[in-house]
Amino acid sequence: MDILKLTSGCSVYIEGTIQKSIKNNQYEIYAKLIKIIGNVLHPETYPISPKQHTLEYLRSLAHLRPRTNIIGAITRIRHFITQEIHKFLNSQGFLWISTPLITALNTEGSGEMFCVSTLDFENIPKNLKGKVDYKKDFFGKKTFLTVSGQLHLESYACALSKVYTFGPTFRAENSNTTRHLAEFWMIEIEAAFLNLDEIMIFAYEMLKNIFKNILKKCIDDLIFLEKKTNTDLINRMRKFISKYTEAVKIINDATGHFTSYFNWGEDFSLEHEKYLSDIYYKKPIIIKNYPKKIKAFYMRLNQDQKTVASADILLPGIGEIIGGSQREERWEQLNLNLKENNLSFENYYWYQDLRKYGTVPHSGFGLGLERLLSYVTGIKNLRDLIPFPRTPKYANF
Amino acid sequence: MDILKLTSGCSVYIEGTIQKSIKNNQYEIYAKLIKIIGNVLHPETYPISPKQHTLEYLRSLAHLRPRTNIIGAITRIRHFITQEIHKFLNSQGFLWISTPLITALNTEGSGEMFCVSTLDFENIPKNLKGKVDYKKDFFGKKTFLTVSGQLHLESYACALSKVYTFGPTFRAENSNTTRHLAEFWMIEIEAAFLNLDEIMIFAYEMLKNIFKNILKKCIDDLIFLEKKTNTDLINRMRKFISKYTEAVKIINDATGHFTSYFNWGEDFSLEHEKYLSDIYYKKPIIIKNYPKKIKAFYMRLNQDQKTVASADILLPGIGEIIGGSQREERWEQLNLNLKENNLSFENYYWYQDLRKYGTVPHSGFGLGLERLLSYVTGIKNLRDLIPFPRTPKYANF
Repeated sequence: MDILKLTSGCSVYIEGTIQKSIKNNQYEIYAKLIKIIGNVLHPETYPISPKQHTLEYLRSLAHLRPRTNIIGAITRIRHFITQEIHKFLNSQGFLWISTPLITALNTEGSGEMFCVSTLDFENIPKNLKGKVDYKKDFFGKKTFLTVSGQLHLESYACALSKVYTFGPTFRAENSNTTRHLAEFWMIEIEAAFLNLDEIMIFAYEMLKNIFKNILKKCIDDLIFLEKKTNTDLINRMRKFISKYTEAVKIINDATGHFTSYFNWGEDFSLEHEKYLSDIYYKKPIIIKNYPKKIKAFYMRLNQDQKTVASADILLPGIGEIIGGSQREERWEQLNLNLKENNLSFENYYWYQDLRKYGTVPHSGFGLGLERLLSYVTGIKNLRDLIPFPRTPKYANF
Repeated sequence: MDILKLTSGCSVYIEGTIQKSIKNNQYEIYAKLIKIIGNVLHPETYPISPKQHTLEYLRSLAHLRPRTNIIGAITRIRHFITQEIHKFLNSQGFLWISTPLITALNTEGSGEMFCVSTLDFENIPKNLKGKVDYKKDFFGKKTFLTVSGQLHLESYACALSKVYTFGPTFRAENSNTTRHLAEFWMIEIEAAFLNLDEIMIFAYEMLKNIFKNILKKCIDDLIFLEKKTNTDLINRMRKFISKYTEAVKIINDATGHFTSYFNWGEDFSLEHEKYLSDIYYKKPIIIKNYPKKIKAFYMRLNQDQKTVASADILLPGIGEIIGGSQREERWEQLNLNLKENNLSFENYYWYQDLRKYGTVPHSGFGLGLERLLSYVTGIKNLRDLIPFPRTPKYANF
């Protein structure tokens, strides 16, 4: 009989009935017909055995790991979260905008961006002597993979009020940690007429809504992951769902908290974030009003002239998950910011135009999908939360 | 009074009531309070006047064009379609998979792919003499922007049965036509246990479902666009919704149709496609079983040994909108195909593994979002259907 040869990994066609087992609470198939569709050709080489494998080992089998129950559970939750985000934003009147991935704007400094080109660098003529003529490149200039769709999104927010983007984003940072990916997915939201507090409450409501529906619809996968990761997943999401003011600790002066051993104006490291959310407050915290000099040029200057209307949401065990700000909508101030940051008017004239022609106060935030998934699933390494991870020296498959 | 200074493009805060006009069918605001939030700083320079502008002119103002009613209508329909695609696929049990955009696979030949790198080509040491050491690059090898997520998607279909991907895709083709974008959005679908006919019926059902709901929910924008583009939008979608066999003409031998002045084995050009769907049949057509030698290595070889189980859907006025195939699931045949196409086993070992370990028959298709939008909106130039288009020598904004 062929079925005696069946090993783990075969694909089969079965006709029969599914019944509850008499022995335990599981289900069994009472098969009338079994046909083998695809055999495992060399069973002794099939790398996924029925026994437990480490996540690290499975990463080397990214093409076969979706056959395991742990990657199956993660894939279903990832799918569910993405659908919920679209559904929630759609229900709130937000329009989804495809912001471009290829951009000539080098907002964050070229070191952290990937260059996109069709020039044949392998056969550079000797007479070029190290000079590259980007005018001959596909786009006629040097182009990069985007680090954020925010600036483009703002142009749509200043026309159609509530918009978002949801897609891959890139960082060429050479940080080989479990918390970084070179290619990751980000949701960015931008809303006209909202100030910083209003957008952060919206961010909290969005997370609350996601957690509420996950607890309703993905409970089997969550129970499974809770055991696998030994993390209090279900409870910590339940706590987050309680009232905003109870669930979240808000710190109004970003760096004041650390005055004893921290100089005002320095940025937090992961250790500081973890101390605040994991040890000191033991709950999600929102830190507001960071010093201007450590934040981006587009954030709105506060009245004190030294902080900006920015805010981050930090989750215990994860660190920063959301970064948001009110955007500088005053034309004169934006011009000063561009100058201070040595950003060319040539590249940003269109961004200034949004302030020149009927400016509106507006705010937005970015949410990293894989970090959110890490909080929901308890899986610490972001490489296990995206199907084919890209990290320094690693673009396999 | 400040409101006497109000010009087109200002942002304002108004309190009052909205009432139907006595004169016509339109609505008017009876304002009690008007506050100016953002003035137009130099009204004489504001480039969007209330008069009609050409789409070409608006393209040069991609940051301000969402303020026009035509780009507003397109943006709402684009948003609606993307939500419908997610909703429909979710309801059919498909899981959304983020396939990677950065890839080391150069499936279609490097000429049509963008290279992704962090190497400093502007300061290449003279002793390199035109040689580039990609081992020093970010990923330790040469990498590209993907032209399709299909191969990666197949690995998930062979584990979780029904999956899709929906995201930006890239072509470095130097074709400066209204039908091409260097960065465009694509939906790719992959389903285990379905053959070619089954997947094409599914593709048709998906389009039908999208059109049905657009006609229900976006009718105001469609009526507006029908006038603007002078195209019979609403009727042609209604016809598509009628029964599959009535709506669609199916041609079983892809090239047989043109035997008189067309050699068997040649590929169709846009002119051939347009002749068939626009002039000869005047309806959507599905062309099946293309010659093997003009199609990709992963398509399933038919019994005649010279055609493959592939199919395209052509829409009148648009040409090809969907391209699908049954995938070669037989390990030996796939190996032959890889050899014939000079593709290295080193790069595709994982793709072969899917056939080695419990292979399943499976099929899939790709749908270009902007081409679908072109059919729905009647707008011919794809550059007007994506917020910030990227084309040869053009990556502005």
